[in-house]
Amino acid sequence: MAITNAIENFHMTVNEAFLAKAQALAPALIETEVRPVRTVEIVPRGEDYIAVEAAPAFVHSVPMGRDDRLCLDFGDHQVGYVSFTLTPVGSPADAPACLRLRFGEIPYEIAADPAEYHGEISRSWIQEEVIHVDVLPAAVSLPRRYAFRYLELTVLDTSAKYKVVVSGVTCRSVSSADPSAVPPLDVSDPELARLDRVSLKTMQDCMQSVFEDGPKRDRRLWLADLRLQALTNYATFQNNDLVKRCLYLFAGLTQNEGRVGACLFLEPRPQVDDTALFDYSLFFVSCLHDYYEATGDRETLAELFPTADRQIELSLRELDERDIVTDKDTWWCFLDWGEGLNKQAGAQAILIYALKQVAVMAGWLDDPAAAERYRAAADRLTKAALNCLWDEEQGFFVSGAERQVSWASQVWFVLAGVFDREKNVRLLERLIEADPGVPMVTPYMYHYFIDALLQNGMAELALRQMKAYWGEMIRDGADTFWELYDPKDRYASPYGSRLVNSFCHAWSGTPAYFIRTYFSK
Amino acid sequence: MAITNAIENFHMTVNEAFLAKAQALAPALIETEVRPVRTVEIVPRGEDYIAVEAAPAFVHSVPMGRDDRLCLDFGDHQVGYVSFTLTPVGSPADAPACLRLRFGEIPYEIAADPAEYHGEISRSWIQEEVIHVDVLPAAVSLPRRYAFRYLELTVLDTSAKYKVVVSGVTCRSVSSADPSAVPPLDVSDPELARLDRVSLKTMQDCMQSVFEDGPKRDRRLWLADLRLQALTNYATFQNNDLVKRCLYLFAGLTQNEGRVGACLFLEPRPQVDDTALFDYSLFFVSCLHDYYEATGDRETLAELFPTADRQIELSLRELDERDIVTDKDTWWCFLDWGEGLNKQAGAQAILIYALKQVAVMAGWLDDPAAAERYRAAADRLTKAALNCLWDEEQGFFVSGAERQVSWASQVWFVLAGVFDREKNVRLLERLIEADPGVPMVTPYMYHYFIDALLQNGMAELALRQMKAYWGEMIRDGADTFWELYDPKDRYASPYGSRLVNSFCHAWSGTPAYFIRTYFSK
Repeated sequence: MAITNAIENFHMTVNEAFLAKAQALAPALIETEVRPVRTVEIVPRGEDYIAVEAAPAFVHSVPMGRDDRLCLDFGDHQVGYVSFTLTPVGSPADAPACLRLRFGEIPYEIAADPAEYHGEISRSWIQEEVIHVDVLPAAVSLPRRYAFRYLELTVLDTSAKYKVVVSGVTCRSVSSADPSAVPPLDVSDPELARLDRVSLKTMQDCMQSVFEDGPKRDRRLWLADLRLQALTNYATFQNNDLVKRCLYLFAGLTQNEGRVGACLFLEPRPQVDDTALFDYSLFFVSCLHDYYEATGDRETLAELFPTADRQIELSLRELDERDIVTDKDTWWCFLDWGEGLNKQAGAQAILIYALKQVAVMAGWLDDPAAAERYRAAADRLTKAALNCLWDEEQGFFVSGAERQVSWASQVWFVLAGVFDREKNVRLLERLIEADPGVPMVTPYMYHYFIDALLQNGMAELALRQMKAYWGEMIRDGADTFWELYDPKDRYASPYGSRLVNSFCHAWSGTPAYFIRTYFSK
Repeated sequence: MAITNAIENFHMTVNEAFLAKAQALAPALIETEVRPVRTVEIVPRGEDYIAVEAAPAFVHSVPMGRDDRLCLDFGDHQVGYVSFTLTPVGSPADAPACLRLRFGEIPYEIAADPAEYHGEISRSWIQEEVIHVDVLPAAVSLPRRYAFRYLELTVLDTSAKYKVVVSGVTCRSVSSADPSAVPPLDVSDPELARLDRVSLKTMQDCMQSVFEDGPKRDRRLWLADLRLQALTNYATFQNNDLVKRCLYLFAGLTQNEGRVGACLFLEPRPQVDDTALFDYSLFFVSCLHDYYEATGDRETLAELFPTADRQIELSLRELDERDIVTDKDTWWCFLDWGEGLNKQAGAQAILIYALKQVAVMAGWLDDPAAAERYRAAADRLTKAALNCLWDEEQGFFVSGAERQVSWASQVWFVLAGVFDREKNVRLLERLIEADPGVPMVTPYMYHYFIDALLQNGMAELALRQMKAYWGEMIRDGADTFWELYDPKDRYASPYGSRLVNSFCHAWSGTPAYFIRTYFSK
């Protein structure tokens, strides 16, 4: 995610007890030493670039001087800290060695010229460093963490009197996910095994001190991303304490009026961002709901329920006199990155969805009165939606003043369960058939589409769609699943250039959840 | 200096006792906190650039975002370590801050684009860094040492949600020279006071763990540079132990056959370079001679005399059957950076000059037989020079197969004292009058020219020349004296671009020596 709105008169309220609980759950990182597996060259293919095996000479032996470069392939996506040895060859080093290092999750990031990036998102996410090494030989340890598979080292200069040999390049890869905790997968379809494997790697590399959205960018805890990461985690790495830690962080660091923020920072101190999103706040409800379902941790449910309840309360304030969520000009709700996507209908559906979950949670907590109150609110909002947002003639939900028909609106109303299964199936079939103008563009939204199919007994179609979408991403070269993917527009970016897209993004890593929940024996 | 030759089958011999003496004399560095004095803008003027006072807003207050820049003037040349505070303003910092830092001894280094540098010398000397700061606010301490007066900070990016304020920019300037040790200067001429002041600053900034040639480039101990630094030191900072340390380093780390190298490295371990230069080796003799004259340290003289003697012995091997130093195609002797300068005559003169000094040293050590032997050799070489290199018709010494007439050859024969004062004066007058084709291009060679004038009673002319040359450099903007300066070709560089010229260079800092030795009351 990358968002530019901000709350006016923003202030943070810290619940020290919650924060202390969260910090006590900070995970140890598992470190693994990873070496490059081959030397590659990055060459154009079509509109993209690929890595091809380079000359057999390995990294250890070739002295490099001005403008010489070396591109190393670590074999798979890594998140970690890189070190190497730089040894001078020739006369004593009479000038510093100057090196440029470029890290790429995909080959394009090595080939592209960062100087040509003029997009809106920060250039600072481009993983490039220029370093000077004054004293040689040197053990170079880069202090920053990188997300990459490819590392290009270019010697910008040594001097006429010496060259350098780069050797011992190592990545100390880090993750708080323990692969040995993942249950074995029981599927016979190799494509499912492949989807599962790439999912796991995506999740593993995003599981750090918290669930990060992406280890390259933005490297932080977002609520909607967390919700999908947590779901996948229960079926895979089962690091449930990490979910608990994140829930306590969100509940312990709230915005004005107790609103849960869209995202959090851990450094330099735990801090909620000043971004609020209607749907994200409500996913605190979903996340707590799922957590209790997965763990049965009643103490956490009870302690964090008031935070969930508060999100519902704040959201209900946004209803107009018709009981419809008020549309806004600002960037108030996410849903998806689709250009021009109107958020009103999706927001209404997500509020209904959350009301039903909070009702269930009230039931778990033996508060039937509250449960009844939430159910009643859900019914009222459902009626309002059917009255005001359902277009019987088109057979679609419409959103906003211009009555926009989008994939996101339909999918969310299916998930909100405003119709019975039969009507849901017909709506989904109609949606696929009509393919309305505002498509889904993120794996995140695709997740909820697959979820909607599965919730309504359309498992075969869900499987086909999952293979077509995530499978195509793998065929397009994904080692980990990408933040953004549109098979019809492969090089798209909402940021002005895919140079700053994230190519290991947790919200895209849910196939393992689906496969393990619905398709394994 | 920047040299690209190398000895074949090079090996280093370490005299551990000498090295231990040198290391025991390692000076403590004096640290001074220096703050910028104003904010400037670098603007073109003619073919060059100058710094002009920028808007009054000072560094502390202005939030900077993408592509915003700030240029700070530290008021004078600094050698040291820079730190500053980076504070985010706006929303929590949701992306790293990326900054480019450019350090310039002169405004041109800020204005020039390093990407356009394609000269032979290493690009790595260009003082530019790009840094990413992941966690804000941050106390940023750059680990490398820079030589500069101007520091340009460019924010390559923050993000749309925050900007940064740069504050508390400080340079921890370092030098082993103690300004309080400098005797007060007693001159009434303000121009001499100015020349002295710039000299002192030049020397101070080059006095570090050893006498460096230049703190920007090459930052190391060169013998011919040391000789002039030591001379100036005796008249100014009087850190005689630093000279002693350097003499022991050269004597303790010798090349094949006991040759003293042209330069030394201190890191990662003390090490002599594989560069040998005929004149530089002989300056070990001069340097030891001057050291004893300044200090009366007989123990050091006695201990290092064999090293001096060895340089004479090795140099005498280079004579042909006529007793003339053999000319070579390689870059075997320095003298000056003048293009096409033939070194034969200058080398012959310097050998005579060194023979006379070593004879004096033998006398100091009560070895009249050795003294006589050296004097006899000097006489023999003088006769050979007058026979083979003196062109009576032209009234000049000629050098090499093409009988080149250069300033360097004449100056060095004057200093070698092959003529009496009267003939020397006529030769120098003729030289100035005729201004032969290969001019002097470095302050280093100008030093010996001024020295030649002063040794021959031409003080008034020496003063005029000194003011014309070094004074003009100050009028051209020098805060410290430059490595290279040709008033007729101000932007010249032997390196392909003056971007890598050194603008604080010890061999250029001798006016203080002349003023204090010859022109103060």
